[in-house]
This record gives sequence, C-alpha cells and structure tokens, in this order.
Amino acid sequence: MYVDLPLDRLLEYRADTAAPADFAEFWEESLAEARTRPLGLRVTAVDTPVRTLDIHDVVFNGYGGHPVRAWLRTPKGAAGPLPVVVEFPGYGNGRGDVLESLEWASAGFAHLSMDARGQGAAGSRAGATPDPVGSDPAFPGYMTRGIEDPATYYYRRVVVDAVRAVEAARALGVADPARVAVFGGSQGGGLALAAAGLVDGLAAVVSCVPFLCHIDRAITVTDSHPYAEIPRYLAVHRTRAGAVLRTLSYVDGVHFAARAHAPALFTVGLMDPVCPPSTVFAAHNAYAGPKDMLVWPYNGHEGGGVEDLRAALAFLAPLLDGK
Amino acid sequence: MYVDLPLDRLLEYRADTAAPADFAEFWEESLAEARTRPLGLRVTAVDTPVRTLDIHDVVFNGYGGHPVRAWLRTPKGAAGPLPVVVEFPGYGNGRGDVLESLEWASAGFAHLSMDARGQGAAGSRAGATPDPVGSDPAFPGYMTRGIEDPATYYYRRVVVDAVRAVEAARALGVADPARVAVFGGSQGGGLALAAAGLVDGLAAVVSCVPFLCHIDRAITVTDSHPYAEIPRYLAVHRTRAGAVLRTLSYVDGVHFAARAHAPALFTVGLMDPVCPPSTVFAAHNAYAGPKDMLVWPYNGHEGGGVEDLRAALAFLAPLLDGK
Amino acid sequence: MYVDLPLDRLLEYRADTAAPADFAEFWEESLAEARTRPLGLRVTAVDTPVRTLDIHDVVFNGYGGHPVRAWLRTPKGAAGPLPVVVEFPGYGNGRGDVLESLEWASAGFAHLSMDARGQGAAGSRAGATPDPVGSDPAFPGYMTRGIEDPATYYYRRVVVDAVRAVEAARALGVADPARVAVFGGSQGGGLALAAAGLVDGLAAVVSCVPFLCHIDRAITVTDSHPYAEIPRYLAVHRTRAGAVLRTLSYVDGVHFAARAHAPALFTVGLMDPVCPPSTVFAAHNAYAGPKDMLVWPYNGHEGGGVEDLRAALAFLAPLLDGK
Amino acid sequence: MYVDLPLDRLLEYRADTAAPADFAEFWEESLAEARTRPLGLRVTAVDTPVRTLDIHDVVFNGYGGHPVRAWLRTPKGAAGPLPVVVEFPGYGNGRGDVLESLEWASAGFAHLSMDARGQGAAGSRAGATPDPVGSDPAFPGYMTRGIEDPATYYYRRVVVDAVRAVEAARALGVADPARVAVFGGSQGGGLALAAAGLVDGLAAVVSCVPFLCHIDRAITVTDSHPYAEIPRYLAVHRTRAGAVLRTLSYVDGVHFAARAHAPALFTVGLMDPVCPPSTVFAAHNAYAGPKDMLVWPYNGHEGGGVEDLRAALAFLAPLLDGK
Amino acid sequence: MYVDLPLDRLLEYRADTAAPADFAEFWEESLAEARTRPLGLRVTAVDTPVRTLDIHDVVFNGYGGHPVRAWLRTPKGAAGPLPVVVEFPGYGNGRGDVLESLEWASAGFAHLSMDARGQGAAGSRAGATPDPVGSDPAFPGYMTRGIEDPATYYYRRVVVDAVRAVEAARALGVADPARVAVFGGSQGGGLALAAAGLVDGLAAVVSCVPFLCHIDRAITVTDSHPYAEIPRYLAVHRTRAGAVLRTLSYVDGVHFAARAHAPALFTVGLMDPVCPPSTVFAAHNAYAGPKDMLVWPYNGHEGGGVEDLRAALAFLAPLLDGK
Amino acid sequence: MYVDLPLDRLLEYRADTAAPADFAEFWEESLAEARTRPLGLRVTAVDTPVRTLDIHDVVFNGYGGHPVRAWLRTPKGAAGPLPVVVEFPGYGNGRGDVLESLEWASAGFAHLSMDARGQGAAGSRAGATPDPVGSDPAFPGYMTRGIEDPATYYYRRVVVDAVRAVEAARALGVADPARVAVFGGSQGGGLALAAAGLVDGLAAVVSCVPFLCHIDRAITVTDSHPYAEIPRYLAVHRTRAGAVLRTLSYVDGVHFAARAHAPALFTVGLMDPVCPPSTVFAAHNAYAGPKDMLVWPYNGHEGGGVEDLRAALAFLAPLLDGK
Repeated sequence: MYVDLPLDRLLEYRADTAAPADFAEFWEESLAEARTRPLGLRVTAVDTPVRTLDIHDVVFNGYGGHPVRAWLRTPKGAAGPLPVVVEFPGYGNGRGDVLESLEWASAGFAHLSMDARGQGAAGSRAGATPDPVGSDPAFPGYMTRGIEDPATYYYRRVVVDAVRAVEAARALGVADPARVAVFGGSQGGGLALAAAGLVDGLAAVVSCVPFLCHIDRAITVTDSHPYAEIPRYLAVHRTRAGAVLRTLSYVDGVHFAARAHAPALFTVGLMDPVCPPSTVFAAHNAYAGPKDMLVWPYNGHEGGGVEDLRAALAFLAPLLDGK
Repeated sequence: MYVDLPLDRLLEYRADTAAPADFAEFWEESLAEARTRPLGLRVTAVDTPVRTLDIHDVVFNGYGGHPVRAWLRTPKGAAGPLPVVVEFPGYGNGRGDVLESLEWASAGFAHLSMDARGQGAAGSRAGATPDPVGSDPAFPGYMTRGIEDPATYYYRRVVVDAVRAVEAARALGVADPARVAVFGGSQGGGLALAAAGLVDGLAAVVSCVPFLCHIDRAITVTDSHPYAEIPRYLAVHRTRAGAVLRTLSYVDGVHFAARAHAPALFTVGLMDPVCPPSTVFAAHNAYAGPKDMLVWPYNGHEGGGVEDLRAALAFLAPLLDGK
Repeated sequence: MYVDLPLDRLLEYRADTAAPADFAEFWEESLAEARTRPLGLRVTAVDTPVRTLDIHDVVFNGYGGHPVRAWLRTPKGAAGPLPVVVEFPGYGNGRGDVLESLEWASAGFAHLSMDARGQGAAGSRAGATPDPVGSDPAFPGYMTRGIEDPATYYYRRVVVDAVRAVEAARALGVADPARVAVFGGSQGGGLALAAAGLVDGLAAVVSCVPFLCHIDRAITVTDSHPYAEIPRYLAVHRTRAGAVLRTLSYVDGVHFAARAHAPALFTVGLMDPVCPPSTVFAAHNAYAGPKDMLVWPYNGHEGGGVEDLRAALAFLAPLLDGK
Repeated sequence: MYVDLPLDRLLEYRADTAAPADFAEFWEESLAEARTRPLGLRVTAVDTPVRTLDIHDVVFNGYGGHPVRAWLRTPKGAAGPLPVVVEFPGYGNGRGDVLESLEWASAGFAHLSMDARGQGAAGSRAGATPDPVGSDPAFPGYMTRGIEDPATYYYRRVVVDAVRAVEAARALGVADPARVAVFGGSQGGGLALAAAGLVDGLAAVVSCVPFLCHIDRAITVTDSHPYAEIPRYLAVHRTRAGAVLRTLSYVDGVHFAARAHAPALFTVGLMDPVCPPSTVFAAHNAYAGPKDMLVWPYNGHEGGGVEDLRAALAFLAPLLDGK
Repeated sequence: MYVDLPLDRLLEYRADTAAPADFAEFWEESLAEARTRPLGLRVTAVDTPVRTLDIHDVVFNGYGGHPVRAWLRTPKGAAGPLPVVVEFPGYGNGRGDVLESLEWASAGFAHLSMDARGQGAAGSRAGATPDPVGSDPAFPGYMTRGIEDPATYYYRRVVVDAVRAVEAARALGVADPARVAVFGGSQGGGLALAAAGLVDGLAAVVSCVPFLCHIDRAITVTDSHPYAEIPRYLAVHRTRAGAVLRTLSYVDGVHFAARAHAPALFTVGLMDPVCPPSTVFAAHNAYAGPKDMLVWPYNGHEGGGVEDLRAALAFLAPLLDGK
Repeated sequence: MYVDLPLDRLLEYRADTAAPADFAEFWEESLAEARTRPLGLRVTAVDTPVRTLDIHDVVFNGYGGHPVRAWLRTPKGAAGPLPVVVEFPGYGNGRGDVLESLEWASAGFAHLSMDARGQGAAGSRAGATPDPVGSDPAFPGYMTRGIEDPATYYYRRVVVDAVRAVEAARALGVADPARVAVFGGSQGGGLALAAAGLVDGLAAVVSCVPFLCHIDRAITVTDSHPYAEIPRYLAVHRTRAGAVLRTLSYVDGVHFAARAHAPALFTVGLMDPVCPPSTVFAAHNAYAGPKDMLVWPYNGHEGGGVEDLRAALAFLAPLLDGK
C-alpha cells in the first residue's frame, strides 16, 4: 500500500525546514580540517577468481585521518583514463566481498566502493573500516552516535569520508578526474547527495531511494528502522529534541540537494516505509541541478532494484564515451 | 538459535525412508518421454551494458517439449571449449536479469542460468518461462501443484527441465561437454542433486542449503515456507497424506543423492529454519559420490552466502584448467 | 480501527476509473466461446448422514469446457420448482464438504455451491475442481496467473464458470429458472457481482464484503492478501504495471456493477483491511439496479457474519413465495 | 511442525499427576448443592427461517441456580424419543446463532447446544448467559477467575452447568434419556470429558482436541492462549503457584477421564499448539471406558474439522437406530 | 511515527459528542447509593524493609459497600496534616507491592494508591481487591463487563471506588482534607479525570496519557488494547453498538473534564497508539478548570515517564507548603 | 512455556567450556592498567524533590581513566558507616533518573547505581556516561564492539568500570568498605558476577536473571536479543567464530563465578528466553562461594521482579546490622 502522500502531492512536495545558517561553514570547516591530513591513498592489487576485472584494495584517510577502505574494480588491463563510479553503501553494510558488485566494472567503469566506518556487520555486505571515535549514550545503530552536537555526530565523519572518497577516486591513476560520478542506494543515496552538495565538478549523481532526507519529517511518518532510532533515542532523552533536530539538519539530504549542481537521477518506491516517498521527493524537488526521478509505484525500499541499476548505467553511459 | 539436532547427531543423521521401488523407472520413463521431443536449443545474443561478458538468451525444450529460458554468460570473446556451470534458481525466482549473476562468467566459466517454470514473480529474480500445465486444487505456491500423483506433480516437470538444461549446456557450441557442473542454492540446490542423480558424467555438483530433501521429515520439523505449503494442503485435504507423501518421495533429494556419483560440495546453516540442517545432512550423508560439507553454525537460510560462492569457485577451479 | 475513508465520504465514494472500451465485447466473446461447448450438466445423488436434505454432486462444463463441480442441496423430497441460490466461494476455498453450508437448503432454497477452479486447498473449505490451464510466472496464489493479458487471466475463466453455474442452476430439474439468485462473500461476493453484470434476469444478488472491486485502488490502500499478490508481482515485474492494470479492469466488480440490474444487497465492514470499504462502496455506488448496503462499523473482513446470512435470507425470502 | 512429543511416545504418554484425594467428594458436593435447586427447564419455540428443523430456546438452572441458555434443534415435527447430542462450546464462544450448527439435527438428532456462562463475546459464536459471580483479580479471560480456591473457580461453575445440561437434555420431552451423548471441541471437548466423568449412563462421548487436560503440563509446553492465561497470572502472583495448581487439578480432564466409562471418541492434531497433543493423549490414555483416537498429523487446533464431525456422526449413528 | 492528527489540529481538537442528558443525575445517584453505606475506613500498619516511610494497608468500602484496598505511604513519623496524592492504577494493574511507588511519600506527600477492583493480575503491579459483581458475556478484559447498561457497567463501580478513595483520603488522620490531589496514568489518568469531575474541592489533578477519553472516537482510530476490547465485543454482538456507545458515554473522560474545576496537568505522547493523542486533547480541551498539557512528540504510551513524574511533583509542590 | 531444559536437568547443568588459560592474568593486567590512573572520585550533592534521601552525583574514573557516572542515594542525614549496594544496569539502560530506584536507600543502604558506558538510550533508564572508544564494524548494540580481540572488547571496559565502581563505593565517606554488596539484573547480574570474581572481600552478591553467562551456549539456544547480536555478527563475518568465541570466554559469567567466594543469591525464570535458564544455572552451579537460587517457574526475563527485590533486601538485611 502507499505509505505516504498521493503522487500528485509528492510531485510538488517541499520540505519547509531551512538549513542552519552556518551549514556551508560547518562543512567547509569539516572538510578543511580533514584536508589538513594527507589523503594517504594506498592501492593494492588483490588476487581473486575474477578474470575479467582487476580488483584492488584501496585505503585512504577520511575524517580525522582515519583509514577508510574501499574496493576498486576496473576492466581487466584497462589503463585508463576511465570514468569512475564512487559507490556508498546502504545502512549496516560495508564495501562487501571482492566477489560482489561486479556490474559497474563489467560495464566499463572504474568502480570505487567505499566502506561506511563502523558498519558492515549487520547487512549482507561486510565492512572492514573501524570507526575509532566513541560516543555518548546512543540507541543501538549509528543514527544517534554523538547526536547531541553536529561536531561529534557520526554522520559528520561519514560524509567527510564520502567526500574524501571522491578525492581518492580522482587521485587514482586509472581515473579521469573530470568523469567521476557518485552512486548509492538508501544510506548510499543519502551520501551521494551529500557528496553532490559538497564536491564541485561531479559528472553525475545517482541517488536511489535515498535515506537521510527531510529527517525531521521522516521520524514522524515512519516507524521503520533506521529512522526509528532517532525517536527511540528521544523517547529516553525526552528533553533533547531541540539539539538532536539541530544536529540532524546538518546532514539532511534536502540541504545538500539545494547546493548540488551535477545532473542527478533519483529513484523512489511509493510503498517504501523505510525512506518514505515524501522525504525522497523533498530532496529531489530541492535539488538545484538537472534531475530526473524514477517512480516505482508498487515497490518498497528495494525501489527499482536491477531496473535502477539499468537506468543508472544508461544515465552514466555517456561518461564511457568521454562525455 | 540452532533449529534442529545438535551437530554431533547431524553428522551421522540418516533418513530412514526408502525410495519408492520404481524410483529409477519413474525417472527413466519421464526423461525418455521428454527426449522423444527435440531439445530445440536456440541461442540468441543479447545486447547489454556488460562489456566483459557475452550474454545470450537461451531457449530449450524441457518437460512436455515446453520452452524453457536461460541466460548464457561467457567471458567476452571466449571461443571455448569452456567448462559450464548450470545454475538452478531458488524458490520463487527465475533466471533473473542479464545484469545479475555475473560472477561465474567473470571467473572464466560458461554460466547457464535456467528458469524454474512458472516461478520468477515472487523473489528477487524475475523469470520468463511459463508452466503451461494446470493443476488440481493446490495451496498457493508450487509445492502442491499436481501433488496427488507423481506423474502430474509440478516438480516432475522441473526436474526434467533441469536434466534437459544439462543436455542443453553440453550442446552449446562454447561448451566442453565433459566439464559440466551443476550449481544452486535452496530449491536450486535440490535441483542440482536431482540432476546429479539423473545425469551421468557430471564434472561436479554444488548444492548449497538444499531444499527438497527428506521432505517427510522437513514438514514435521519446520513451520517455514515453502515446506509449510505441504502441511497446509494436508490440513485441508486431511485424508490425502498417503498419496502426497508417496508423490514427494519421487522428488526427494535424499534418493537422488543415493544415486549420484560426481564429486559434490554441500553447504548448510545450523540456524536455517527453511531447510532444516537434518534434512540437508540426510542428503549429504546419503550421497554416493565423493563429497564435502561446509557447515555454517551461525547462519540461517542464507548459508555461507558469498563464502559459499568462494568455496564453489575454488571447488570448480580445476575445471578451468581442463581437469 | 477504521481502515479507510470516513463513512460520510464512503457513502458518496465513486471510482474514477472507466471500464475498458471493449469490456462488453470481451465478455460477450468469452461467454460465446464457452457456450460453443455443451453445458454437460451431470447431477448425482450423494449418500450423506443428512436426513433433512437431498444432496447431489453436480458437474457442468465451465470455461474451455472444463468440468466444474458443485454441491446441490435441496429440502428432502422437494420436487420443485424451487428458487435457487447459487453460491460462489471465498478466496482459497472450494464448495467444501457435503456436511457444511446446510443453511440455504434448510431454509427452503435449492442451493448450488460452486467450486472455484484450482482453489480449495488453502482455506477452510476444500475444492475438487482442477484448473487445467497453466500460466506465465505468477506470484503464489491466483491473482496474477495469466495477468499479462485479459484473455489468459485466471479470473476470466472463473467468471465464465460463474456464469455457467447460473446457467446450470437454471437447467436443474428442481429449479425455477426465473427465481435464481447469486450469493457470495469476499471473492464470492465479487463473483456474484460479475454474474449480476453478465446474466440477464437474475432474481437477486447478495454480495457480502466483495473482493475484486476497484482493484486499482485496493492495491494502493491495503497490504493484506490476496490483493497484495498484485503489487508483489509488480514489485518483481516492475515494467508491467500498465498491462496488469488493464487486465484487472476487465474483472473489476465496479464495472460489472454498472451493468447489473437485479435487486442487490451489499455488506461491508468498516474495519476490513482485506476488502477496504471504499472499494466495496465504489461497487455499491456504481451498481445500476436497486440496492441496499449493510454497514458493520466494528467488523473486519468477517463483515456481518451470521447477521449477513440472516439479512440475505430475509432479502431472498420472497423468492420462496414464488415472487 | 510437530509441537510436542513424537507420535510413538504420545501413544503411551501418561500424566504423572494424581487427582486430589477429595476429587470425587468435591464434585459430589458441588452437584448436590446445585441439585438443591430445581432444574427449572423452560423450552420456548423460536421462529426462524429454517424450515427443516424445529428450534427452541432452552433455559435451565445451572450452578447456583443461575439460568443457563441453550438452543434445542430437532428435525421438523419429530416427536421423539430422539437421541440427544449435548454440545459444549469452545473457549470464548457461546451457543451461537439459531442459524448456525444445523448439522446434528439435520442428521436426525436432537441437538442441545449450551452456552458457557459469561463467554460468547470473543469468538465466532455469541452467548447469552451471564456469569453472575465476580472474582478476585484475574488475568483477562476466564482461566484465572476465582482460581485461588476450587470452590470459587470459574470452571467449577461451568462443569456443574454442563452436568445440569445433560440432566436438562434427559428431561426434554423429545428425548430418550438413555440415548444422550456429549460432544464438543477444545473447551467443549474438555467439558464433554467432565460430563463423562460425572454423569452415569451416557450413551457416548465425543471429545475433539480437548482443552483443560493435563493442565499442569500444558502451561509449561505452550505459549498459546488460553492456557497461557495461567502462567501470565502466576507471573504476577508469583507465590500462588501451589494454590493455583491445586485448584486446576479439580477440573483436569485427565482425572475426569479416569472416572468415565461411556464409549468415547477423541481427536487430536499433532501440530496443535493450543491443546498440545501430549495433553490430549494424557486424557485419552487415562480414559476408563472404550475409546478411540483420530490422529491428524498435519493439523493444528482445527483438528479434523469437518472430518471430526463426519466421524462423530458415524460414531453416534447407532443411537439413531435406538442402540 | 505520529499516530493521529498533526499537532496544530490536536491543539484545537474537540469531541463533537454530547454527554447524555442525565449524566449528572446518573453519577449523583450512583454516589448517593454508595454513600448509603459507611466508608468503613480501616488503616493497618504494615511491616516492611522500608525505613524512611510508614506504610499502611488501607481498606475502605467502595461501590456496593465492597471493600477496596490501597496502600498508604507517608514520610516516617510524619504526623500531618499532610497533602495527599490519591493514585489510580493503569489498566490490568493494582496498587502493587509495598516496595514499589516510593516516590510520592519520599517527596513528602501522603500517598494513597488504590486498587482497581478485579484488576491486578495482568500488568506489572498486583492487586488485592475482588470485584464481586459478575457480568453478561464479555470480551476478555474489563472494558465490556456489563456494558449493555450504564447501571451494570464495570467502570461505574470503579469510578465510584475512585470517588470513595478521595473520601477515604480526606478521612485519614494524617491528611489535610483541603490538600488532596488525584493522580494517575492511562486508566489511572482517566479515573483522575472522573474524580475531578465528581469531587468538589480537589487541590489538583494530574492526568498522564489518560485512557477512557473520547471513547467513541478511540475505538475507530486505534487497534490497540484495551480500547480494542470494545470493537471486538461489537464484532460479535453486532447489533448492540447503540447501547454500548450509550453506556460508554457515562464514563467518558471528556464529559468528566467538562465538569471539573481543579487545576489540572495533562500529558500526552504524540506516538501513543494506546491512548491516541486526539482523545487526550479532546479531554484537555474540554477541561473546565485551569490546565496545562505536556506534549511528548517522540513518545508512545509511556508518555513523559519519569519526566511526567518530575513535572507532577513540581506541579503539586505548593501543596507541601500548605498552599 | 519452558524455554530450556527441564528443571531436574537444570539443577545439575554445568557448562563444559573451560576458561582461557590466561583468564586471571588478562583481568589482573586489565585492572592493573586501570589502577595506574587515579580513581578520581567526585561526589556532588543533587537537589531533588526527594526529602527522605540524600542523592549525590558520583563520578569516578573507570577503564582508560574515562569518567563514569553514578547516583549515590543514602537515607537523609545518614552519617555512616553504611553498607553499600553497588548496582549495575540492565542492557541498554543507564543509572536512570534521580527519582527512580529509591528502594535501597529507603531501606537503609547506601546505594551506588552505576552507568554502563555508552548505554542508557534504549531502555527505560537514561545514562550519562560516554564510551570514548570506537570499534571495528559491529552489529548494532554493544555485544560485538571490538569483539575480535579481548583487549578491545566493549565488555572488558565495562567490567573494569564495575570493579572500579566497587572501589569507588569503598572510598565513599559514608561507606563501610567491609560491607559492600553488588547487585544487578540481566546485564547487571552478569556484571555483579564479574565483580564477584574479580573483587576480594565483597559482603554479598545478588545476581538476578544474569546475562553474559555460558555465552557460547546461549547463542545457540535463543534467538532473543541481546545474545542474538553475536550470531547476527557471525552471520556476516562467517570466518571469525573462533576469535569471537575466544573473546567472549574472557567475560563469561561462568568463569567469573568459578572464582567468586562471597555469599550469592541468584534468581532465574524458567520461561526466560532472553537469559535461558541453563545459562543461569551454569553460572550458579559453577559459583565457588555459598549460594542460593530463586527459581520462578512461570516467569520470563522479568524473573521474580519485586519478589527478587524483597528477597535481596532480606538477603542483605544482616549488613544493615553491621554483619
């Protein structure tokens, strides 16, 4: 069943929440701080059964100079320069196994698939990147770690990691820095929007069923995890809603979208209780660059699934031709 | 939690049910009947975004001469002869999309991924093969279609399709008929065992968390679907248990295993309520050829997941070297 | 809790979907095709412990000339002509056991209770009628069998069976063909509407909590099965929504209702998530003949239960007096 | 799945709990007290749409002289003497509607269907008999009302009502007092056993999937309601287990069974979590008269359903012939 | 997620249902009847491990002269006169254990915590007060006992008990009768409103997440128990909705609120499915005295929990100073 | 229902797993390391509405010198020396609010209620202590943080905190260091056992329904959280079971129990799926000091609830008399 507003209202739906006044400064400072440390890019070939691709273990320094891992997959023997698709994982997942996610490189792209720090032990794809930062009391999961202050919030670190991943992608020998796209679903879609709002010169953005958008509304219209971690936290720390909502406003995809200019493809499932459609449309409708939206009326959080992948490949195909 | 016997008992567990006396004749006749019709192999190149592989749409005639669809994936430009991995799908799934399941061909194999007739609209992978045969009243799903008689049972048709898929694989121009392996998980694992018991000269068998094994026990030790379709049917057709159990004995993986001789790799999850471990061990322990079992103590029906794939690739790697 | 619109809006609720342009032709041709075959009515006395009724096993030829079974119950020794109540079963059910559903005949009617082909193994009442027609990949259940085309759709066959059941009822020696009513709940209520829209001269129609009404809305306002089979199918076959919705429009009770003229009694439960009230009101409000609606504010899909039966007996009582 | 011991152990399973020493005295005194009041049988014809049966509203005085209601259904115009089937309702149900339960009378029996006092507002069949006795704090439901003392326990009153119902049946003008049988499913099956253990000269007993048997074990092997009401009560009143188990021992079907001598038919579902099979076998194996057991391996609490009815009709058929 | 209207509509939400014309008379007569019997206050010291408080077992005569139990807790050795907080329990609970609920007395108040008759065996706090009155058939629980008539309804008795509890509080030697407040959460909050509407001269009222408010709406907007007991009853007794709704109107907190004048503090959780916010606001907005509302946006039925207690202590603190 | 072995087997149940050879050294070194830093005890009076108690905010340095918060409650004006009850919180909870947990101090004890670092945002009691240490990828919750190595494991830090809490208790001016007891339920019960095994001279230990006992078995016999976090982690990190089980052996209550000598009271619920009885009995039966066990046959994880508190108060009452 439809879990949110009817489609005609979704098409025009806009969040009424403003970004914090110092949103831009906050991220400029966060990134500047990260860039005081070297990127530290390390690329190590991995021996796998896959014969059609070259696969490398990539490490770069993200937030706080902490090492972040990724897989780099490229067509066998491709010398480059190649367009690069930087992928961010869904909630609870990491970069996964070398044997997974062969599609992008098989289609001719360099594919850099990043870990989300501390995640990768709860979904289907394992991670290998620690989050060396602790936190105040938090609800199980990642949503409320350090949530009392934007400076200590978990997603501040992950967003910085995502931006650094794009920088790492551009620094790869095989890459054409002018042809870097970001891609992800759910949490990965939210991080793709964050990168889109913070990185200049991205070639394209694909954000499938994005999470972390219009969060203040999401927590009032769905009971599903992971959004539900936030009201579950506030149900115990009842007097902290103001601080918590303020923190969340710094990582909200709606505000990143309003600062993004690369061509973007969004997807949404009208039966998605995890990332309710109005929150996805709020980001899409705020997006400042050229944009399109694939609407899947009868899908939940799986969205378009392989059809989203097919559409993303078509959307990014011009990059293969050097466009 | 463990859902079945403790591991020490599983290691020695054997089904106490005998195959029907005419088990071999039943399948000989079923296959002979199918072979009265031409295999009708059709292989058509498909245009996809995948640059590292060649992908073909394959159709062959299965049970009743009905057309059955499959995807054939091979390394780009590979002329063969290649070893072939014939894959059977999990319950509710079909061969999926051309963009899925790139692993086997990326690792150097020809990969023939077959539809299960009538399935492919309930899982994550779509199917494109009708089952043109109707049935008596049946519980929703496939388990009880035509279950009153082995001759009309749905899985008789699918098993014949699976055997014909191996024949189709051997008939592919790119294939080395002496290096054909069968592979599958859950229902696919059950069909791999069926093929192993009915086809001579298979190079190897990989049966991950197989379904359709020791079915008479399975329906008394788990409430999970799809096994539960059978007691749900018998809960309405209370007086038909004898006929139903007789029919099921003709498709039980335990009895196929006892007639199989190719080297086999099994996998099992000790927390798997869908295919309870004792039913998997019953098949493994009855298996007449060389065999090994990967035991995942803390996994459910996902079994070893990508670790099962890794193990299967290693198990079949000698085939790539012509062994 | 109320699961749909408030009552004041329900009372005026109308579907905004038009019937397909060739709706009438489609059904004329479907019925004409069926009528090229003889009805083949066979009526066989059954020996039962019931002393107050005569019970017969009835077989007639439905869609495709396929045999369809029913029970005929009449008051002991009644010679007729009697009014006949033709009953259609709820989803998953068949005609049931001879010992069930004694009410109508005990109240003086001839009662012809038809199987739904292929069903009768999942509910409380068994069936005995095969559906000899296979299908493309379908979601478990009956809702999506052959759904890609109206010509192959499962419910085309069942609706034709239902019309032929009325013809069989009229052909019974004990029947007064001018006093035939149709009756059913849920799927049976939907089939009663179909018969009402396709058969001339029905004496009355009783449609309790009908299923198969305003289907395009139903699949967006409820998660409950069996409606949910359709979005579950479309969640896999994402690009087929157009064809699927078109097919469904040929069996939608709203369109049958708009073509029906016999006096009708509807019932609805305002807490019914299986057949949401707006879909029932859409059919009722579209109904072209005299009509009444029993509204049960605090009931779910059980609707009025025995109160619906009591009301139906009262509604049809004049038929017993030859009216 | 099987929810209890394997069948071979069930066949020999016996409760190890003794009846309280004053079990017989307790019931003798309870019945003697009830019999100090007149039975007060009132039989009033009811006007219904049912033409094949005569239906009467029956009231008699049960425990405490409180009026208890029942329906009496007999074949139209039957003068008697007829065999009588006294039916006791399942938990939460009452005698239901006049339009329900037509089977027994349609098969030639007089059918007296009794209310369970205070019940009849939670199941599918309504009741019309108050329980004018209040209680100490109790868990919602009926299981723990007055449970601290056998003298105040709810089921003491209901069992007395059941015995009085048999006495009422024998006093009906249409009845042959020598041909009275008791019948019921679940709670009704438990009450049938109670009547069997307390009433002399019953013609037969049919106890389907009986409740209220080997209660001390039942509450440790199932989480299902209504047995679960008892541990839920004890979870709050933690120190009262001794008194509670003592009270329950006075209404345990195992102890009634050991005092019963009429021929009995039991039924059981091996997948019944509501009345676990070992508790049913404990009653059956303790039963002191001739007995038989219908075992339904693939059914839950519905047991044999209409097949149980068919078997019961066959079992009691000799009564129709005056045997 | 929010379970009801948005906050801006809640702030203005008003029930549109009028109190029955004889509402005041009904309660005057009910209380007058109770007062024909002596209050029968008995106060007995209890020996407990608590050294900072004096704890007494209190019994007084409630509805029908039936004894009702409560705990009285006072600061050790306090001679009084003290302000008294009379607490009513949540649904299914009783006064609990002497070792529980030490907060009020530890803060300096006399705390009289009353049982709800017949309850106290289903929650976390035990009860010790019988309800000696039986009832017609009722759904398990307390909501539908005697619901066919206001005179026999369970909550008539409990409301009378609550008023008598206030009278008992005022009669305690340690009490200052001018400084008696009522307090409770959920059912206790509903009873606090009832007392507020029926007792003159209360010092204050604290009603946390109150139950029993705008009941006619509640049963249409939530599926949660205990409100759901009412539609479950009406689902069986389908024709009784008129009588049932009439009965409920006599105990509806909205109507008590409109007759209450003491200063009141309400609390509400916007994610509370048990006592939906609109029903709480309906009572608050109807409240005739000074009032305040604590809104917890991210809480369910736990409401503000210890924050509600903190606010209640602050709200009632002036009573400690004799104000 | 009983969720584990029958009681007669539980009474003798012993874990068959040995402690790691360097168990004692591991903890000696861990504690020695912590003790290289000053305890840093800070005790600050808190202003609360509670008049019968003095309440202080306590901070001490735990593992890594990280500040850990606790509440200290003492009877109003008590000068000491008092016996101290050190309480550890249940999983997800912290020390809670000043207004909660008044029982121990009201009974005459000094009560020191410690936070569990990083917890206190998921249960009913809030926490205020950060865990400044990050971790590798972990399943949501605390169970798998740093689980790949005993040195980095989350519970190493919490156990050190617990020991330091006892040291803080002894250092309180109001305390009699010879009369310090540890107390807790669930996780708190596990930590009480850890303290009992690591601290000399404890006066008593109360471990209610303890968690963290016989963990290797627990994860195979229950699906309930929080134990389930471990198999959920291993389901992703399939090859890490060896390292994970090794780490867990260092925090297993069974091994702490075998090294504990203070008199101990355990409690257990036979229907507790969260901390299965066999794991509690394994700890109890291994306990090296005087011990007793309260068995609650009909309780789940709530165990004896207030009855456990009553028993604990009685068990510790001699401490109040200086014994």
